[in-house]
Amino acid sequence: MRNVKISPSILSADLGNLAGDLEKISNADFIHIDVMDGHFTPNLTFGPEVVRVAKRVSNVPLDVHMMVSNPEESIDWYADAGADLITVHYEAATHLHRIVSRLHDKGVQAGVVLNPATPVCLLESIIDDLDMVLLMSVNPGFGGQKYIEATYAKLRELTALCKRHGVDPMIEVDGGVGMGNIEQIVAAGANVLVAGSAVFGSQDPAQAVFDLREAGTRGIAKQNA
Amino acid sequence: MRNVKISPSILSADLGNLAGDLEKISNADFIHIDVMDGHFTPNLTFGPEVVRVAKRVSNVPLDVHMMVSNPEESIDWYADAGADLITVHYEAATHLHRIVSRLHDKGVQAGVVLNPATPVCLLESIIDDLDMVLLMSVNPGFGGQKYIEATYAKLRELTALCKRHGVDPMIEVDGGVGMGNIEQIVAAGANVLVAGSAVFGSQDPAQAVFDLREAGTRGIAKQNA
Amino acid sequence: MRNVKISPSILSADLGNLAGDLEKISNADFIHIDVMDGHFTPNLTFGPEVVRVAKRVSNVPLDVHMMVSNPEESIDWYADAGADLITVHYEAATHLHRIVSRLHDKGVQAGVVLNPATPVCLLESIIDDLDMVLLMSVNPGFGGQKYIEATYAKLRELTALCKRHGVDPMIEVDGGVGMGNIEQIVAAGANVLVAGSAVFGSQDPAQAVFDLREAGTRGIAKQNA
Amino acid sequence: MRNVKISPSILSADLGNLAGDLEKISNADFIHIDVMDGHFTPNLTFGPEVVRVAKRVSNVPLDVHMMVSNPEESIDWYADAGADLITVHYEAATHLHRIVSRLHDKGVQAGVVLNPATPVCLLESIIDDLDMVLLMSVNPGFGGQKYIEATYAKLRELTALCKRHGVDPMIEVDGGVGMGNIEQIVAAGANVLVAGSAVFGSQDPAQAVFDLREAGTRGIAKQNA
Amino acid sequence: MRNVKISPSILSADLGNLAGDLEKISNADFIHIDVMDGHFTPNLTFGPEVVRVAKRVSNVPLDVHMMVSNPEESIDWYADAGADLITVHYEAATHLHRIVSRLHDKGVQAGVVLNPATPVCLLESIIDDLDMVLLMSVNPGFGGQKYIEATYAKLRELTALCKRHGVDPMIEVDGGVGMGNIEQIVAAGANVLVAGSAVFGSQDPAQAVFDLREAGTRGIAKQNA
Amino acid sequence: MRNVKISPSILSADLGNLAGDLEKISNADFIHIDVMDGHFTPNLTFGPEVVRVAKRVSNVPLDVHMMVSNPEESIDWYADAGADLITVHYEAATHLHRIVSRLHDKGVQAGVVLNPATPVCLLESIIDDLDMVLLMSVNPGFGGQKYIEATYAKLRELTALCKRHGVDPMIEVDGGVGMGNIEQIVAAGANVLVAGSAVFGSQDPAQAVFDLREAGTRGIAKQNA
Repeated sequence: MRNVKISPSILSADLGNLAGDLEKISNADFIHIDVMDGHFTPNLTFGPEVVRVAKRVSNVPLDVHMMVSNPEESIDWYADAGADLITVHYEAATHLHRIVSRLHDKGVQAGVVLNPATPVCLLESIIDDLDMVLLMSVNPGFGGQKYIEATYAKLRELTALCKRHGVDPMIEVDGGVGMGNIEQIVAAGANVLVAGSAVFGSQDPAQAVFDLREAGTRGIAKQNA
Repeated sequence: MRNVKISPSILSADLGNLAGDLEKISNADFIHIDVMDGHFTPNLTFGPEVVRVAKRVSNVPLDVHMMVSNPEESIDWYADAGADLITVHYEAATHLHRIVSRLHDKGVQAGVVLNPATPVCLLESIIDDLDMVLLMSVNPGFGGQKYIEATYAKLRELTALCKRHGVDPMIEVDGGVGMGNIEQIVAAGANVLVAGSAVFGSQDPAQAVFDLREAGTRGIAKQNA
Repeated sequence: MRNVKISPSILSADLGNLAGDLEKISNADFIHIDVMDGHFTPNLTFGPEVVRVAKRVSNVPLDVHMMVSNPEESIDWYADAGADLITVHYEAATHLHRIVSRLHDKGVQAGVVLNPATPVCLLESIIDDLDMVLLMSVNPGFGGQKYIEATYAKLRELTALCKRHGVDPMIEVDGGVGMGNIEQIVAAGANVLVAGSAVFGSQDPAQAVFDLREAGTRGIAKQNA
Repeated sequence: MRNVKISPSILSADLGNLAGDLEKISNADFIHIDVMDGHFTPNLTFGPEVVRVAKRVSNVPLDVHMMVSNPEESIDWYADAGADLITVHYEAATHLHRIVSRLHDKGVQAGVVLNPATPVCLLESIIDDLDMVLLMSVNPGFGGQKYIEATYAKLRELTALCKRHGVDPMIEVDGGVGMGNIEQIVAAGANVLVAGSAVFGSQDPAQAVFDLREAGTRGIAKQNA
Repeated sequence: MRNVKISPSILSADLGNLAGDLEKISNADFIHIDVMDGHFTPNLTFGPEVVRVAKRVSNVPLDVHMMVSNPEESIDWYADAGADLITVHYEAATHLHRIVSRLHDKGVQAGVVLNPATPVCLLESIIDDLDMVLLMSVNPGFGGQKYIEATYAKLRELTALCKRHGVDPMIEVDGGVGMGNIEQIVAAGANVLVAGSAVFGSQDPAQAVFDLREAGTRGIAKQNA
Repeated sequence: MRNVKISPSILSADLGNLAGDLEKISNADFIHIDVMDGHFTPNLTFGPEVVRVAKRVSNVPLDVHMMVSNPEESIDWYADAGADLITVHYEAATHLHRIVSRLHDKGVQAGVVLNPATPVCLLESIIDDLDMVLLMSVNPGFGGQKYIEATYAKLRELTALCKRHGVDPMIEVDGGVGMGNIEQIVAAGANVLVAGSAVFGSQDPAQAVFDLREAGTRGIAKQNA
């Protein structure tokens, strides 16, 4: 049985006290680092130095989500800074297979992200090589947006694609995930959930991680049901 | 007589404890925020959220140095986040006069940055409108580089240009500034000095700010000598 | 039963007397405004001011076809100028779901355009949100080209996709449409037809609109036959 | 003695009735056609078809101002459409000498435009080949802006540069020109004046052209005084 | 029955003695010319002049593989230099149908190349017009890489797509092809094989071409088995 | 006294027999390698492999002229392939000082190239660091163009700039240089002359190099006269 993993997004953490906020979520399965460059997305967030800080202050594996143009030019920076897993956007990558190979050569797990309008069929020739597929359930750029309902159908298509290929990558969902929908999202096929305000906006982030994982785990039994 | 101002660069601060590091330099004249987008410079640092954090935790005016392609598209974000002064690179701006006007309309001071190889003569038609000129004394992208000696001559050219125009913008120097050269840099015409490792790499950052300002002030008397 | 709508393209109108030409087609269902920027397409045509003019002089709904790079940056201009429907190219849009949402938030209908070589399967994750799909039956850039026969098959694929999703967006065809093929194009699944020279090149544009609609309507009965 | 020429900008004309508006200014010296592509400038206006229309309906020489990225790729379109004079922005042209040579080979006059912040010294190695220099006295993109006062100094610098080189290109000013300042602008060195709302916003555009030319001509005597 | 064709890649030839190396492979079916621009791929190789040289010194048809950004802007150069077949990357072409039509109008065969991660389903609306599909079995940029095993499955999908459309374009494979796998690659559906070091790295290139073709031909019988 | 150096451009050599052509000019002072990427210039020529070939077959120092966008991304390739001197275009380089420093760190001489319309004053803040300035006397892209006469004046300005700075970089001229003008070009300040067709178009290239150098040397005495 697959485990549900919670990946709190530091987009919702306090950048004035990042180390402190990261310490609060030492029970998380991943730390989700939202790299934005002001070009692929209008917003610009942070880069490799934040990865270095997270690696220094936390033992939680780092899940680096690169929302940048030309990711091929900078993945090495993030790998060298301590990323355990790096995901790049299909929409931004020309030589996607090369990026995935490069990450594997450096001992980093590799994933591909799809924007809400980008279809699952585009993964047909790369799915076999991926450690993770990340489906955006909001448009990338900002925290606090509402979950796009059509993601449920997309999760089912992705699950079907993986089955057809006999592969079992992690399936992550990012955007608008909370206690109210996490079980249903897992039931549709996800097993890694990004949570921003649902974690850092709560009184007790560690408890929020725990609760989300527990709620999500209830969805596992319903997968493929 | 002009005052010497010290603008510690948070590129050298601890991003894990930014609020704490900013509190240590409450005696600084500016906080220098090095925005890099991974395109204009290879490195990517941080964006408007760091400006918001600095504004929240500090009363020191914010000196935002935008090392980004197409700054015209994002200056509003930084102005709205609390920047007191925004500088954009001549090399990156097509409609420089519009940017300066836009910043003034929003009540933000405006400056232009020149890379080490970019000549002072390019400021001829914009110098009258500027609150600051920032001369890079290293190539932008990273902390800890060595000061380029040719900056002394460039400071004298810039001072001459300003005199010819009857204007007196702040003149800032960024890169490799420390106790060993700050007096000489001020003597050549600068009055705002960015200091990174010289401040945050010291035991007592506030003392370092104090010492740098004092050392720099000794250079004021030698200006135009 | 679906209605056939005729959307005369002002690419074939007289730009010296646009108001006059627009008045001639007050019986049209849409006015098709071909925005080209000289980058996405080699040709550059016209922008928001033409939309404003059309809105001022005509009551016909405005169908704005944006053949531009980075449509995300300028859709607001066209919405604010009076567009009733805006279509953007799949090939030019990175954040397609955000564009569609933005248009809907502004009260404007939203569509996606596919170039002749761009396959229908790419619409899988956005089709549910669209008011229109526009299939190019010529390569965008100029008026007066010949209809690409493969568009018939593509219309059938698109119709099948819509059925599978239980949605019924308008299906528009642009390029080489005339009295000789409009019935067959409608029969294959289209219900909005762009006509350029077939309308503005005729003696009586209003009559041409009428005739085209009548001919197109004969194709409706053959849809899904 | 140099003649003052008035070049009404069709940015301020009625795009719904362009031919009619062009007929009203048959006494103008040039028609100023503001080509914008939505990339070099945020606004997008019109392209070669408007040049063709103007050539068809008017005998006034066409002064095409190209506010586009990569002008090298499209100047032929405008030359072939009937432009008599084409100006390209220094900020947008990598191979400026090639563009000027290309235009001359096609029998079209060639000029260079400087944005408000772009200094005159950049023309040093191309001024000998130019038929015109156009100084922007507003930031390009929209009609109706206020004249930037610093343009007076820039006109004097440009005049000095021309004298030093022994050349006498037309000197055009674009932005915020009207009855209140035209004499002074000519006195500072200009001899071709773009006027938008001052012409098309008046009751009698032909009279406005006449008045502007007469007022401007009073400035000629003060040139080099 | 389809014939197996061998297309030696001059990326592995001696650029100091290109004519000499081309003479050694006069028994080849194509000469594969790897155009790289240092932008689509990091490497930059050669352009139209090498096509002209090859046409001058050899009678073998020229198979020009364009690994460049914006191929639309330069295909004419290669067609005019003597290319018999030109392939462009799906990932680099916005107006793919226009490129194919343009090549056909110039009497040149046209093909589309897919990077390893680019799926076959993207060819749905262009396959009918193609003379060739080229599947990359390594990431483009350099000679001497290892064949990606997933290409076998991709060849079968492509073969199925062609059958469904009733078309029979050449199917070319580029990267890591040698005596050890050519039969199996042909069996999976390919009939044109690019070989670099396997030809130019051998003692007797003509014999290598002969051997590869013979080995490849053994795979034909197994196609569709 | 300065020596005149001849740098034959392999743009005019026979790419089918490059090694042979390079052997013919073993008495040259440099081999001029014209790297073009099809973006900075419309033409695409050759890349690092040609540098490697030249280094292998010739002892003449390699003068690599990079006509590419974003030279910063690829200078290492050319340095590592054996370039002795690399020049980059001012128009293409954002971080020019970093490029020059990087080349020096790698033990390669560094120069800057100015297009015909690019003024000498732009070198003010980099001239002290340069081993060479290359003035284009034709627009880059093709061999066989006519020398632009205005280059004489530009050479004198550049010479004056160097004197003012107390530096003595090599001054190279590229385009339309031949027996008819070489003495005069040297007299105006150049000491390295690129010659394409004047060398490789002659019966005896080595003799042409000899003759050009002899003719050029006659100009030395007239320098600063």
